[in-house]
Amino acid sequence: MSLDTLARPVAFTGGLLDRADALRQNDDALAAMLAGGRARLLMLDGIEPVLDKGALVWGEIARAQGAQLVFLGLDEEGRGAFAAVPPRERSHVGPPSADLWAAMGSISAGDLATYGLARSLVGWHARHRFCPCCGGATAIAKGGWQRSCIDPDCGAHHFPRTDPVVIMSVEHDGDLLLGRQPRFPARRYSTLAGFVEPGESLEEAVAREIREEAGIAVNEVRFMASQPWPFPSSLMLGCHAKALSRDLTIDETELEDARWFTRAQVAQAMAARERGEDGEAFSAPGKHAVAWHLMDRWLRGV
Amino acid sequence: MSLDTLARPVAFTGGLLDRADALRQNDDALAAMLAGGRARLLMLDGIEPVLDKGALVWGEIARAQGAQLVFLGLDEEGRGAFAAVPPRERSHVGPPSADLWAAMGSISAGDLATYGLARSLVGWHARHRFCPCCGGATAIAKGGWQRSCIDPDCGAHHFPRTDPVVIMSVEHDGDLLLGRQPRFPARRYSTLAGFVEPGESLEEAVAREIREEAGIAVNEVRFMASQPWPFPSSLMLGCHAKALSRDLTIDETELEDARWFTRAQVAQAMAARERGEDGEAFSAPGKHAVAWHLMDRWLRGV
Repeated sequence: MSLDTLARPVAFTGGLLDRADALRQNDDALAAMLAGGRARLLMLDGIEPVLDKGALVWGEIARAQGAQLVFLGLDEEGRGAFAAVPPRERSHVGPPSADLWAAMGSISAGDLATYGLARSLVGWHARHRFCPCCGGATAIAKGGWQRSCIDPDCGAHHFPRTDPVVIMSVEHDGDLLLGRQPRFPARRYSTLAGFVEPGESLEEAVAREIREEAGIAVNEVRFMASQPWPFPSSLMLGCHAKALSRDLTIDETELEDARWFTRAQVAQAMAARERGEDGEAFSAPGKHAVAWHLMDRWLRGV
Repeated sequence: MSLDTLARPVAFTGGLLDRADALRQNDDALAAMLAGGRARLLMLDGIEPVLDKGALVWGEIARAQGAQLVFLGLDEEGRGAFAAVPPRERSHVGPPSADLWAAMGSISAGDLATYGLARSLVGWHARHRFCPCCGGATAIAKGGWQRSCIDPDCGAHHFPRTDPVVIMSVEHDGDLLLGRQPRFPARRYSTLAGFVEPGESLEEAVAREIREEAGIAVNEVRFMASQPWPFPSSLMLGCHAKALSRDLTIDETELEDARWFTRAQVAQAMAARERGEDGEAFSAPGKHAVAWHLMDRWLRGV
């Protein structure tokens, strides 16, 4: 988990905003910031980024045109950074668009982290205008870090979701287990992953997912690295595990295929990915995915 | 993260049910199990456990009296284990009751894990009868592992929440940082903790929480152990970090106090906790909390 063991920063981490937690509770301070011109609006197209020469674009708060605002934090000059909640139909919970995948290659680490935070947070608001307890309307609260049911008989508080996902490199006898989902690009194989469920530890979630998807048992689960993944609000928890056997039984509702790759095959595919090319045995995931880090660390033995 | 380094199992882990993920998708198989007498109902009092001689009590499915049922998994005899969704007013999101804290001391690891899963899952259903996207009614789906909006114009799918929380032992010059929340029992001090937010990694969440609550910077964040904590649906992610300085600035909205304790003070308080007593310098958390494991591992240097 030491950052020294990572070959490059994990995408969507390294945000430069000060989240300034105490200000969220202070409606007067936030209002003064907005009224006093000490605030900027992150320009979004729904929940997609607006970029100029590979950088996020900021505008006057007035450009939010009355939309609800969330407080992302303070920028390096002490100005408030805000984003506007889009209409629900301009939010969605799907994977990144092709344009966004491409933009991830050019945008700075700090901008990507700010965008990821904004996307998760405004998307959650767009999809939580009503109270799941009673069906009534909710109102934005605490600078956008809470929604509260406005019915005094209910009054439930709701908080932005962050969904933990386990994603794991699995090794057996020097080979690495990788699989492909039907939605992947052609020839892409990556580490297996799945949501952590209520009532299980991280280690148990890793073992369950590998058993469900590949039909094998693992042990020696080790935590490796984490990544916020704003599609819509995952926390990727990267682990490594050792498989106790080799014969796979693939869950075909989740995976199109899964197989063992040799160290040489993985090394060749990762080197090809660095050149922007597909590998010989398979196409490796891009460096913006935590899977890239898990595979890179497995190759480097760290 | 190797289980070998843990002095005892982490409470709420070690569930013996097979979650049988594939059955969740199969309404016919679940219906046949319920109709054919190959299913049992976990008896709950709202979301509190019903115990007989320290063990969970199971009953006939008919005792659910028409309440919605969630499929917890298959027991060791291949029977379906189900739990009933209580009315919302019999669910709540607060910490464990005094009775439940006491019961945690006598209930088996497998029973505690089954109960934790059931509590998180039925509590989530009780508080999610409506669609946060449109305010309409939702229907239980996939054996209780999903709710779906019944309005065809919306049709949103909702999944049980699991909220990642960082909790961390923080060391400086051989001493350990512990704090107390106002709701703690008298003299109790424990490791600091807080929810992971959208747009940050686990490591960043640890650093932010320590900075917010104690006013100090940390580095060398290391993952230690995890725990599902069903109050209502947390995933505790236990870490260790090294503080770069010693002077604390305490966030008094979150903490009543925080201070450094020596290794001898922590060792004495942990030994006292084993005897069911409070320590001299402070009262250590119980062994059911992941904080106990973090403090125990810090003492043992593993």
